[in-house]
Amino acid sequence: MNVNAPSKKLRAIVVGATGIAGQQFLTHLRAHPWFEIVALAGSSRSAGKTYLEAITQPNGNVAWFCGDLPARAVLEMTVQNSAAVNAADYDVVFTAVESDAARELEPLYAATTPVFSTAAAFRMETDVPLLIPGVNDAHLGLIEAQRKARGWKGYVLPIPNCTTTGLAVTLKPLWDAFGLDLVVMTSMQAVSGAGRNGGVLSLDSIDNVIPYIPKEEEKVQRETQKILGSLSGAAIVPADFGVTCTCNRVGVLDGHTETVVLSLSRPATVDEARAAMTGLGSSLAGLPSAPERLIFVHDDPFRPQPRLDRDRGAGMVTTVGRLRADPVLKNGLKYTLVSHNTRMGAAAGATLLAELCVREGLLLG
Amino acid sequence: MNVNAPSKKLRAIVVGATGIAGQQFLTHLRAHPWFEIVALAGSSRSAGKTYLEAITQPNGNVAWFCGDLPARAVLEMTVQNSAAVNAADYDVVFTAVESDAARELEPLYAATTPVFSTAAAFRMETDVPLLIPGVNDAHLGLIEAQRKARGWKGYVLPIPNCTTTGLAVTLKPLWDAFGLDLVVMTSMQAVSGAGRNGGVLSLDSIDNVIPYIPKEEEKVQRETQKILGSLSGAAIVPADFGVTCTCNRVGVLDGHTETVVLSLSRPATVDEARAAMTGLGSSLAGLPSAPERLIFVHDDPFRPQPRLDRDRGAGMVTTVGRLRADPVLKNGLKYTLVSHNTRMGAAAGATLLAELCVREGLLLG
Amino acid sequence: MNVNAPSKKLRAIVVGATGIAGQQFLTHLRAHPWFEIVALAGSSRSAGKTYLEAITQPNGNVAWFCGDLPARAVLEMTVQNSAAVNAADYDVVFTAVESDAARELEPLYAATTPVFSTAAAFRMETDVPLLIPGVNDAHLGLIEAQRKARGWKGYVLPIPNCTTTGLAVTLKPLWDAFGLDLVVMTSMQAVSGAGRNGGVLSLDSIDNVIPYIPKEEEKVQRETQKILGSLSGAAIVPADFGVTCTCNRVGVLDGHTETVVLSLSRPATVDEARAAMTGLGSSLAGLPSAPERLIFVHDDPFRPQPRLDRDRGAGMVTTVGRLRADPVLKNGLKYTLVSHNTRMGAAAGATLLAELCVREGLLLG
Amino acid sequence: MNVNAPSKKLRAIVVGATGIAGQQFLTHLRAHPWFEIVALAGSSRSAGKTYLEAITQPNGNVAWFCGDLPARAVLEMTVQNSAAVNAADYDVVFTAVESDAARELEPLYAATTPVFSTAAAFRMETDVPLLIPGVNDAHLGLIEAQRKARGWKGYVLPIPNCTTTGLAVTLKPLWDAFGLDLVVMTSMQAVSGAGRNGGVLSLDSIDNVIPYIPKEEEKVQRETQKILGSLSGAAIVPADFGVTCTCNRVGVLDGHTETVVLSLSRPATVDEARAAMTGLGSSLAGLPSAPERLIFVHDDPFRPQPRLDRDRGAGMVTTVGRLRADPVLKNGLKYTLVSHNTRMGAAAGATLLAELCVREGLLLG
Repeated sequence: MNVNAPSKKLRAIVVGATGIAGQQFLTHLRAHPWFEIVALAGSSRSAGKTYLEAITQPNGNVAWFCGDLPARAVLEMTVQNSAAVNAADYDVVFTAVESDAARELEPLYAATTPVFSTAAAFRMETDVPLLIPGVNDAHLGLIEAQRKARGWKGYVLPIPNCTTTGLAVTLKPLWDAFGLDLVVMTSMQAVSGAGRNGGVLSLDSIDNVIPYIPKEEEKVQRETQKILGSLSGAAIVPADFGVTCTCNRVGVLDGHTETVVLSLSRPATVDEARAAMTGLGSSLAGLPSAPERLIFVHDDPFRPQPRLDRDRGAGMVTTVGRLRADPVLKNGLKYTLVSHNTRMGAAAGATLLAELCVREGLLLG
Repeated sequence: MNVNAPSKKLRAIVVGATGIAGQQFLTHLRAHPWFEIVALAGSSRSAGKTYLEAITQPNGNVAWFCGDLPARAVLEMTVQNSAAVNAADYDVVFTAVESDAARELEPLYAATTPVFSTAAAFRMETDVPLLIPGVNDAHLGLIEAQRKARGWKGYVLPIPNCTTTGLAVTLKPLWDAFGLDLVVMTSMQAVSGAGRNGGVLSLDSIDNVIPYIPKEEEKVQRETQKILGSLSGAAIVPADFGVTCTCNRVGVLDGHTETVVLSLSRPATVDEARAAMTGLGSSLAGLPSAPERLIFVHDDPFRPQPRLDRDRGAGMVTTVGRLRADPVLKNGLKYTLVSHNTRMGAAAGATLLAELCVREGLLLG
Repeated sequence: MNVNAPSKKLRAIVVGATGIAGQQFLTHLRAHPWFEIVALAGSSRSAGKTYLEAITQPNGNVAWFCGDLPARAVLEMTVQNSAAVNAADYDVVFTAVESDAARELEPLYAATTPVFSTAAAFRMETDVPLLIPGVNDAHLGLIEAQRKARGWKGYVLPIPNCTTTGLAVTLKPLWDAFGLDLVVMTSMQAVSGAGRNGGVLSLDSIDNVIPYIPKEEEKVQRETQKILGSLSGAAIVPADFGVTCTCNRVGVLDGHTETVVLSLSRPATVDEARAAMTGLGSSLAGLPSAPERLIFVHDDPFRPQPRLDRDRGAGMVTTVGRLRADPVLKNGLKYTLVSHNTRMGAAAGATLLAELCVREGLLLG
Repeated sequence: MNVNAPSKKLRAIVVGATGIAGQQFLTHLRAHPWFEIVALAGSSRSAGKTYLEAITQPNGNVAWFCGDLPARAVLEMTVQNSAAVNAADYDVVFTAVESDAARELEPLYAATTPVFSTAAAFRMETDVPLLIPGVNDAHLGLIEAQRKARGWKGYVLPIPNCTTTGLAVTLKPLWDAFGLDLVVMTSMQAVSGAGRNGGVLSLDSIDNVIPYIPKEEEKVQRETQKILGSLSGAAIVPADFGVTCTCNRVGVLDGHTETVVLSLSRPATVDEARAAMTGLGSSLAGLPSAPERLIFVHDDPFRPQPRLDRDRGAGMVTTVGRLRADPVLKNGLKYTLVSHNTRMGAAAGATLLAELCVREGLLLG
């Protein structure tokens, strides 16, 4: 597919730039062909400092968590107070803040400028699509309604919870081809999903499984139904299959593993299911952050493993394995997936979404 | 309950004594009030050596894996060749050998003597009950048929796979009280289940999940249905609800964690389900290895955790947590369990089974 | 040895009772024959609540980290504000607070009452002995000077840093028997030493070593020299051998492992060194928290391992292994030790110290 | 520096190709500009099969441990029996076999062809240099003596033990600039160093440290002295400073961490030591596997960490941190290093050595 790159780079601001999610934006956008980071914003604690100062701790250590440091130009940018950002100065806003902050800040920015967000605040609002590029692009049609209803020139586009992403990506082709009646998912999630503030202590993760992640199961269940729902006028009608989840934390750094057992509406062989899955994502060709396909199906029964498979396609591919018929459920199918929670499920995923909006003419320089 | 201890200690031999499962028998039986280890057997490689010699490696290290060493008398016993054991010399045989060896050896022993086994070899034989004390004691009725069919004076009683045990224990009270239509289970199993020979390498478990354990899912599915089945004449009719499992290995030392989603035949509240579960096991009172109850239901949503809960009741209690209604399945219920795979799921569980047989008059000195 | 138990139990208050170190006091003192917890104190945040309320988190979970809960009587005690404790009401004060708080609070308590502390605040004060029972009991002679200098009826007795303890325990018999010229130590410390506030994140410990623990090396070096120093009038003259440490954090729950290379002043064979080590601690016989001996020397070269050896003697024994001559240093000796950082190195160690003071007539009901 | 690439690619055979070390050769040589894999050899078990067949397990899984599979041409090569290889057919032999096999096989190959080996067999032979490129290149002068003494047209060049490499690399510039009197090293080694056969079990590594690696300490001590020794006629005079090591295994996948305390012969400031270290390796410019410099000195005291630093320079750079004066030893210096044990310490290191030989005219097409 021939994708027109923007004639000049779009000017981006990253809000929440000092946290680990914000740093992932800085990393992913380091040499992006379409977006250029021209400004950073953070809390009042960071405002007025250079970025390097802002991430330097009292003991002199630099709290940078993502491999190589950003370019010197970024390190020397003065961090703005996120509450005082003039979003109109930028073509695009990337936000990586907590949900409460997002609820306050994102409307301010969206008044003038498109906002791509990793926060949960607006995910379940009626006029907000919950988008995964290549999965439910048609939901972009809701943006006009959102703008009109809220009187915004821009809009807010959140990405789903990182645990939802792998599940929704793998369900989509099955839903389209065979329909779904029931989905039962158990996750074994990486510790990086909990971030650094309030993150998982070694005291809890060593030689252990933590069987509960507050609010996670409800999010995954509702988000999945919304993502696979259909746009009807100015609203999304959630997909009507049942989704029930159990979410666990295990001692893995990155990469959420999920076991899935499901009941299709119409029978399908394993080969048909594999074929449906492997096709997903071809519509994204040409977008800089897009992998060749969104799903890779592994035939080795010992795969996927989070450490071996999370980085496939630079962390943008969901790896499926153990795809097999389930003799118990009606039209039953089972598989295990690994999805990179801090790539496709975070900043890189939000960037891919912004790229899709560029292609669709929804993001203009 | 008043349990009559045997008038004198029963004479026991442990076969497969040098392996990790055998060592667990030696540990559990160290100061047992009813059983006394009077002999040990192993492979031809160990035969003729003292036990201490047999577990001493070429480099001089003693390959003992279970905390404190056994009593000196045990260390100095001469290990017999398991193929040449005269089982008639003993009141009871405990076997901890691989499945292939069990298939050959256990019939030799059972010709004269009751055999309690951790091996899989005979679990699915028609005339062999698959017993968990307190769960399906009535299946002991099958022993007469087994003796008759095989012309044995003794019998073979295997315990289930360690992953089956926690599941069957927790399903039993629900099955009895409300019926079951469907059970979906995902396990996160400890590495100790894989033993030391062919065990899980650190290279595979660090920062990782292994999504496949060969043959495990099939075993758990069939064994669960057999355990909860009903004795009808000289056979067990498997329970007719569907069981579908996905078995994973995680970086946990001991204690299998399992998430369970199920559909009851008749509606039950969470309180009713909890009440049913907490009653299980009272019939075992007085047996030396029996815990007060077989199930403990935790109200803290962050429990059960394998490291914190595996040792409850000396590893004989299955801990259940996150017991909640499932809004998706019909009469849906969800929970997470932790069961100690190398206690209740191994030697200690087999010993409890032998204790039950003592009480039922099936094991005589 | 015949130790006279106090005629009635001594009345103890635990300050800092809600933190993990305080909880370890509650656990260790649960059924103590000489001490009885009659009061608890905490920060202003906890003051006025029952203990159970104070450790209950906003989401309803009970933040209790140490196995079985304390007795109901303790759970229902009202937590005092640590700044308002009237220490005169108690026979003994156990403090488990941060160093800054200890510097303010402990003098208030010591004005009337003996204080046993896990905090670093007073460890290096000239008139404060740094005691490990069985190692440098003679330093108790400094208490009179402390009382006089500070005008206190009570006194402050801190225990050493948990990394110092194992090192000092194992050096003591060598120092006494052969003298020491140089000690080089590298630690591989457990994550529990970092506590729960500001503890080690899984993101940092999985598949990793953290090569730095701020201020730890300096503490260990100076404390070791003080503990092995000699009491001279109203001061301790530090031992004059060189100690150089490197402290690392590894992904271990409990138990600090330390490799030691040292140069003795006088030559000693490995057997002589072993004999010296194994004798230590016999003077503690009869103290409730004392192990039979303070050091166990393992002959298996694969020991000590923190998981297998940390609990020896209920965590009060330091396990030494790989004891061997070093051909490079003059009169060189090498070994590896494991010491339980949250038992002997924390509350249980402080309790043992209080027991010693009872025996020595320094703690009266 | 201007390095002349060979006019055509050198024809290489990898012996021991199916093991994990052999696979690392295949990975590192995948697109090498100077060497081309034209043949593979393995044990009699693999001989005659295609490589893909040889690494396929009975259950159908492909035992490939190193990320992306090799090129199809390699997968389809027929594996030769290593005992029947005609080395004269190749320009260079890379061996990745156990020490016993190496002792038999490598002389057969060296009769005609240069052999670069990861095995220990010949490391301590008088006429065999133990080379680390950029560290002791002058020892190449020993090759003529080796050829003459053994009547070989080729030669054997082993690389050091992976634990020696990081230590010798960092000591070299200090030795040259300031002299060394004493080196005390404690290692915390990754599990990958133990390979897959007889590798470290999860049962041993979880929540644990293993304090002993048989024969490792002796190897590191002697190899370090040899590498830093001086070539004198047809022999290497070992460096005469003392080296004493303690080697531990920790739960880290890749990357050996080593703490070093040493005594210099002449005083040096930390800045002088850093300057000496950072210069090492410039002579390797132009060699395809050479990093820009061999040592990177980190100023963050929390570094190096194996997970964060092992991959620096594609795993060819040794990262040093915590460089500081030691006040106890005479002219004392301390630091911590991380070295990638399966890159610079294995196949990639052996390849770099072969590249050096190309440049020095010792390897001709």
